[in-house]
Amino acid sequence: MIEWQRGRTAVDMIERDDGLLVANQSAPMLFAPLRRWPEAEREAVCLARGDVLDVGCGPGRVALHLQGRGHRVTAIDHSPLVVQVARDRGVRDCRALGLDQVGPGIGHFETVIMFGNGFGLLRSRAAAPRLLRRLAAVTAPGAQILASSLDVYQTSDPVHLAYHARNRARGRMPGQLRLRIRHRHRATPWYDFLMVSRDEMAEVAGAGGWRLDRTIGEGKYYVGVLTRGAVG
Amino acid sequence: MIEWQRGRTAVDMIERDDGLLVANQSAPMLFAPLRRWPEAEREAVCLARGDVLDVGCGPGRVALHLQGRGHRVTAIDHSPLVVQVARDRGVRDCRALGLDQVGPGIGHFETVIMFGNGFGLLRSRAAAPRLLRRLAAVTAPGAQILASSLDVYQTSDPVHLAYHARNRARGRMPGQLRLRIRHRHRATPWYDFLMVSRDEMAEVAGAGGWRLDRTIGEGKYYVGVLTRGAVG
Repeated sequence: MIEWQRGRTAVDMIERDDGLLVANQSAPMLFAPLRRWPEAEREAVCLARGDVLDVGCGPGRVALHLQGRGHRVTAIDHSPLVVQVARDRGVRDCRALGLDQVGPGIGHFETVIMFGNGFGLLRSRAAAPRLLRRLAAVTAPGAQILASSLDVYQTSDPVHLAYHARNRARGRMPGQLRLRIRHRHRATPWYDFLMVSRDEMAEVAGAGGWRLDRTIGEGKYYVGVLTRGAVG
Repeated sequence: MIEWQRGRTAVDMIERDDGLLVANQSAPMLFAPLRRWPEAEREAVCLARGDVLDVGCGPGRVALHLQGRGHRVTAIDHSPLVVQVARDRGVRDCRALGLDQVGPGIGHFETVIMFGNGFGLLRSRAAAPRLLRRLAAVTAPGAQILASSLDVYQTSDPVHLAYHARNRARGRMPGQLRLRIRHRHRATPWYDFLMVSRDEMAEVAGAGGWRLDRTIGEGKYYVGVLTRGAVG
């Protein structure tokens, strides 16, 4: 991403723990202006209201857009390097913080944004409720999360179908991907990333004290609108 | 390679056993006509005389060129799929055979071609003499091998320098690369591939009963002209 920011077209690779290796094609999207966002996110971002927490902000495409619309935005990303890029690009309040470090100190928000497949940061059925409660703790009743995901079940690729089956056999949600990013000789640690169907998003949200009100977008890639119940 | 042949621009990756992962950019070269070959190979191919054994022929760029010039060419490649592609493209005598399966049955050649970094197929200082003697057994005294290699020592990349040092510490030639090809969920087994300086090529050749007469090309990538001594 840093190399992309500098104008190079670096290719890094996403490796899944079944050995699948594919080019990471998200770099252009990370820097895209509103008109090139996925349609579901373009529509959903209009629902943002009040102070916004942008989780997994990357280089700040969403934070910059919402700042420009007058919102007070706190953007977080677990990578200090990425946070520096976002700051350089003009994100005013950007902090190196992972979702599992979010706590009452950082503010009180009406809207939480998790774009760019951001629902994936909830990691797994096991990890999600705790993380969702962390978000509840920095929001008021009636607050919303706008989170995008990819319905990975809309595939006929046997490699993916075998991966889903393997996850099911292990008691995981089928779309719980164990991934790492590789670039030249570097590799991130393995991490879990959760892709869900709309029904699964409702189930995961519910277990964490949020309710899936509706989804935006017709295709595989969609945004869920989650609202917080009365109890934090 | 198959996908390339079908007009797709598939990217597969080369993984080295230190974790280095880079895009395999050899696909266009495998199909290149003479005018786009590396200069050293373009010059060296003019030295071919008599019957030719093309080792590691790939889709047959060298075999097709030499057939067109009137040579009788036997082309071998360890991959049956690749051999099929070469046949489909017009290579008349193409066999699925690895270098370690070459034996007197296949013919008697005046020229052995190992292009496309083909010297690498000799694998390691330990494996090379035996493989070079296999080639001696299918050639006459005075026969020649035209083999290309890459002088990997012309680098300042710390990742490569560390790899060379690690090889030295293990008693390997520094340019003995342990590689595998990955494409989506598939991976080849690990294999050794030997990259040498000009001096090292002379040393390796000598240990296998061949003499490096001269090299062609000024840069990192060059072709060695090896001739066979009197004793097979």
